[in-house]
Amino acid sequence: MTFLTPDPRQTALAQTLAATVPFVAPEAMESARGAPFDARLGANELSFGSSPAAVAAMQAELGAIWKYGIPDNAPLIDALSAHYAVDSACFTLGEGIDGLLGNLVRLYVASGDAVVTSAGSYPTFNYHVAGFGGVLHTVPYKDDFEDPEALIAKAREVGAKLVYLSNPNNPMGSVHTAQTVQDMIEAVPDGCLLVLDEAYTEFAAADTRPPLDPSDKRVIRFRTFSKAYGMAGARVAYGISHPSITRSFDKVRNHFGVNRVALAGAVAALGDADYLMQTVQRIAAGRAQLVQIAQDNGLTPLPSATNFITMDCGSGGDYARALLAALAKRGVFVRMPAIVPLDRCIRVSVGLPHEIDVFAERLPLALGDIA
Amino acid sequence: MTFLTPDPRQTALAQTLAATVPFVAPEAMESARGAPFDARLGANELSFGSSPAAVAAMQAELGAIWKYGIPDNAPLIDALSAHYAVDSACFTLGEGIDGLLGNLVRLYVASGDAVVTSAGSYPTFNYHVAGFGGVLHTVPYKDDFEDPEALIAKAREVGAKLVYLSNPNNPMGSVHTAQTVQDMIEAVPDGCLLVLDEAYTEFAAADTRPPLDPSDKRVIRFRTFSKAYGMAGARVAYGISHPSITRSFDKVRNHFGVNRVALAGAVAALGDADYLMQTVQRIAAGRAQLVQIAQDNGLTPLPSATNFITMDCGSGGDYARALLAALAKRGVFVRMPAIVPLDRCIRVSVGLPHEIDVFAERLPLALGDIA
Repeated sequence: MTFLTPDPRQTALAQTLAATVPFVAPEAMESARGAPFDARLGANELSFGSSPAAVAAMQAELGAIWKYGIPDNAPLIDALSAHYAVDSACFTLGEGIDGLLGNLVRLYVASGDAVVTSAGSYPTFNYHVAGFGGVLHTVPYKDDFEDPEALIAKAREVGAKLVYLSNPNNPMGSVHTAQTVQDMIEAVPDGCLLVLDEAYTEFAAADTRPPLDPSDKRVIRFRTFSKAYGMAGARVAYGISHPSITRSFDKVRNHFGVNRVALAGAVAALGDADYLMQTVQRIAAGRAQLVQIAQDNGLTPLPSATNFITMDCGSGGDYARALLAALAKRGVFVRMPAIVPLDRCIRVSVGLPHEIDVFAERLPLALGDIA
Repeated sequence: MTFLTPDPRQTALAQTLAATVPFVAPEAMESARGAPFDARLGANELSFGSSPAAVAAMQAELGAIWKYGIPDNAPLIDALSAHYAVDSACFTLGEGIDGLLGNLVRLYVASGDAVVTSAGSYPTFNYHVAGFGGVLHTVPYKDDFEDPEALIAKAREVGAKLVYLSNPNNPMGSVHTAQTVQDMIEAVPDGCLLVLDEAYTEFAAADTRPPLDPSDKRVIRFRTFSKAYGMAGARVAYGISHPSITRSFDKVRNHFGVNRVALAGAVAALGDADYLMQTVQRIAAGRAQLVQIAQDNGLTPLPSATNFITMDCGSGGDYARALLAALAKRGVFVRMPAIVPLDRCIRVSVGLPHEIDVFAERLPLALGDIA
């Protein structure tokens, strides 16, 4: 990895980019520490696993893995269309929200174009903005919430092509009401598109979701099968917007990019409403446990509308980073925000009951390690 | 799909692109005709299916689909490194060769940059070149072979960033010797990179593959689990080149883009050398049958180093297109080259024995339909 010399044949832009990985995988950390983690609570995965119906559908489709996938992804697009009662032309599918964000930025952002997000929000969006030569402008969080008014003001000030909001928010777990988000949509400046990342929306109350209105060209919304549907490894997510936006993805996307088995699984997962409801209840119960554990140990849990609890460790980033390292040493994988002042926190996913027990046991030990 | 109006917020390049699908899926054709095909012989898939070891590995990994994939794809990269005895830094993984080609073009081709390929060769490469604003220059096939000397001469003439060769070739099935390809590598002009697409190489004789030499920065080679390994729906392929090239993909790729289950399947498929050998033998036998069927019906089968037989129908493109349509009407899905003079041919994949029987039965009927 050390002998990466720039290739003078590459584009001027490509030569300026760093070869970065947005996230280090827990598998790589396990390999580095020479032992598996006892609790995998860092990637906001659904440790309960996906719906048995989804697993069964994928199992059934494995025998057809020799066939190419379906470039228009019709089985899932049609299912989504029925699920939301929204025209199928208003959906586009991709290899996770990460993949969709890459294609979105490619469509909207040319070299030097301005983009706005919150300092400390989802880093893979920033990775794609940099990757297409966009210029990122950030505004601070306000009391651990993304700040729609400041985001819009900045977008207006810099003439942004895209402004990003995640609702509920990762990494803080905070959520705005539907009305606040709708007000933000109404305020999007001409020439700008609101990127509304709703990866965690199924964990949140219904009144945090403005109604879907695909006649509105000011916003594209992204949802995923990686979080509440428990299929992070499958790589299936979707965008919902006006067809003049969703269909333009067909200009640039990898048309056969979605795994055939994953597509079948997502259709089944979408159809299993009972399992989703159970999931949401289980996550709520797990959140309550994590809140208690945080309080028992003198940390301040932030309110969460997601499948994780962000815990304010009450001191600066160095302290939280030390706690993170101490937890990892004791077999607990968690992550934390990267940016001041968010980095006073650690972010703990709701895992399996025994993993929460492990966290309850190791957290005081890790706190002792760094005292 | 009809109400796609350009979005003025998008990049100048994006606004010029057409929302195209490189290939219409057989599933979409079946849905349009209201009945499934009796023989699926159009997409060069491995109808025998993938190795039972690969299917078992995928089945075992399904329970972990809730976990994100592994961004450095280490399990497969390490297996490839051992398989080829080539340093792991010389590999990069992607969502099919289609995905890798997209990222390759993104890294090398800025708006207006020249790219060279053969007229009638792989359309998805051309799709990506257009998608990044590259200017495509083509040279004709020579006696149904891609013409390395003409490709290099054109690359030199236009100052190409990339020159593409598939060996064996799709859609004609022809293959050059290792020496011819090595001579082409030696002749790549300064400032240009040879894109050597070896999607079908496992079906070809060993003396069509120049030795892997990852110290050579003039070429990147692409191979896939979609063809001989029978995992087209999984979306796993790899590039092999000098690390300064392969590692630069880390600047732009979707790091979590490869499906976790697919990765496990590919590792197992790579390890099942016996199944690959059986596959190659089965395909050779199927090719011989298709050759006989073509000859029995007055078509001229071209020599093939792939899992398909391209059949010269002895007349122009209109005739071959009519035959294609007649075959589809009679329940046989095949494809054909799009460009004169290649479009005098149809391209028939080796399918299952009963599908070859269907083809043998329906081909004379379809020929009768258009006589």
